[in-house]
Amino acid sequence: MAYDVAALEKLIEQFQKIPSIGRKTAQRMAFHVLDLSDEGAKEFADAIIDAHTKIHRCSLCFNLTENELCPICESNNRDKSTVCVVEEPKDVLAMERMREYKGVYHVLHGAISPMNGIGPDQLTIMNLVERVASGEISEVIMATNPTIEGDTTAMYISKLIKPFGVKVTRLAYGIPVGADIEYADDVTLMRALSGRSEL
Amino acid sequence: MAYDVAALEKLIEQFQKIPSIGRKTAQRMAFHVLDLSDEGAKEFADAIIDAHTKIHRCSLCFNLTENELCPICESNNRDKSTVCVVEEPKDVLAMERMREYKGVYHVLHGAISPMNGIGPDQLTIMNLVERVASGEISEVIMATNPTIEGDTTAMYISKLIKPFGVKVTRLAYGIPVGADIEYADDVTLMRALSGRSEL
Repeated sequence: MAYDVAALEKLIEQFQKIPSIGRKTAQRMAFHVLDLSDEGAKEFADAIIDAHTKIHRCSLCFNLTENELCPICESNNRDKSTVCVVEEPKDVLAMERMREYKGVYHVLHGAISPMNGIGPDQLTIMNLVERVASGEISEVIMATNPTIEGDTTAMYISKLIKPFGVKVTRLAYGIPVGADIEYADDVTLMRALSGRSEL
Repeated sequence: MAYDVAALEKLIEQFQKIPSIGRKTAQRMAFHVLDLSDEGAKEFADAIIDAHTKIHRCSLCFNLTENELCPICESNNRDKSTVCVVEEPKDVLAMERMREYKGVYHVLHGAISPMNGIGPDQLTIMNLVERVASGEISEVIMATNPTIEGDTTAMYISKLIKPFGVKVTRLAYGIPVGADIEYADDVTLMRALSGRSEL
C-alpha cells in the first residue's frame, strides 16, 4: 500500500530501485532519513551526488578511482608485469583483502553474456589486449567468476592474448576452505578432483 | 576493508548508518548509485532532501504529512469520535491496509521506555489528552505494540483519559490467523486463553 505522503513515497521508490531491496526495507530506510537531522539529510544527499560525479574509471585498469589512475596502478610497490583480470571493482576488493597479491588489475566491468546481450565490445577487453600488446606484461591471471559467463570470458580473453606470448593462468577451482565435502555441489567436486595436486 | 576511493567510502558509510544495513548491503547500494544515470542520482538525492524538508507531523494526530493536517484527519468520511492510538506512522499504514477501520488516529512516536530514557513527555500523550478533553471523542482504541513498553504506555494513557468518561479499549491478543498453536509462544497462548470468546 502506498503512503499518501508523496515525498515519502518518492523516497521509498528510490530505495526500492536498489537490487534486492524490497518494499519493507525501503520503507525502513526512508523512515531513517526522516529521523536524520537537516544536516544529516544534506550529507546523505551530497554523498550520493559526490560519489556519482567524482568517481570514474582508472584510465589504465578501469577500477574505480577519483583520480586519473587508481592507487594500485599509481603505486611503485606493485608488480606491473602481472595483471589479475576481474569482472567487477568489488572483486578487486576481495583480492586486496588477502594482502597476498602484489600485481595489478584489469576490471572488465562485466562478463560476456549473450543471454543478456553483453558482448566483448561492452567490456574493457580490447583495453586489456592493448596493455598486453605493449609487451610489459608477463602473466595474466584470469579471476573471473566460476560461472558459465566468467569461464567463457576467460577463454575468450585467453585466446586473444596468448599470441602475444604472455602466460595466462586461471584461479583454482575446488572445495572452499573449511567447507564440508558432503555439502559440496557436484560441479565443484568434479573441478576439485580434476585439479587435484600431489601431496 | 575500506575503499581507497573517499567519495565511495563516504556513500557506503551513509547507507551503513541505516539500522539493520550491514557493510555488504551498504556496498551493494553504493554501487547501485554509481550505476545510476546523472539524472537518476540527482533524483535520488533530491528525494532525500524533499522528504526531509516537506514531511512533518499532522498538527492533530501527529501522523506524517506534507500539509497542516494529514489526509485522514482532513477526510469527511472518517469517524472523528473514534481514535486509534499507535506508536509509529507505519502502524497507521498497517491499520489502513485492512480497509476496515473508519476512525482517526493518534501517533505517539514511540512508547514509554524507562530503559531507553523515554518518558511520557517525549511522546505526544498530552496532545492526546487535550483531544480527549475537547469532548468530541467517545472511544480510544489502544493499538500500541504487545510489548512491555506498549502495554505500559497503553495503561498509562488509559489512566489519564478515563476520567474524561471516554471508552478505552485495547486490540485483542491471540494466536495469529493461519498460525499453528503448536508453535505459538507461551505468553501469546496465555493471552489467547484469557481473551477467549464464546462460540
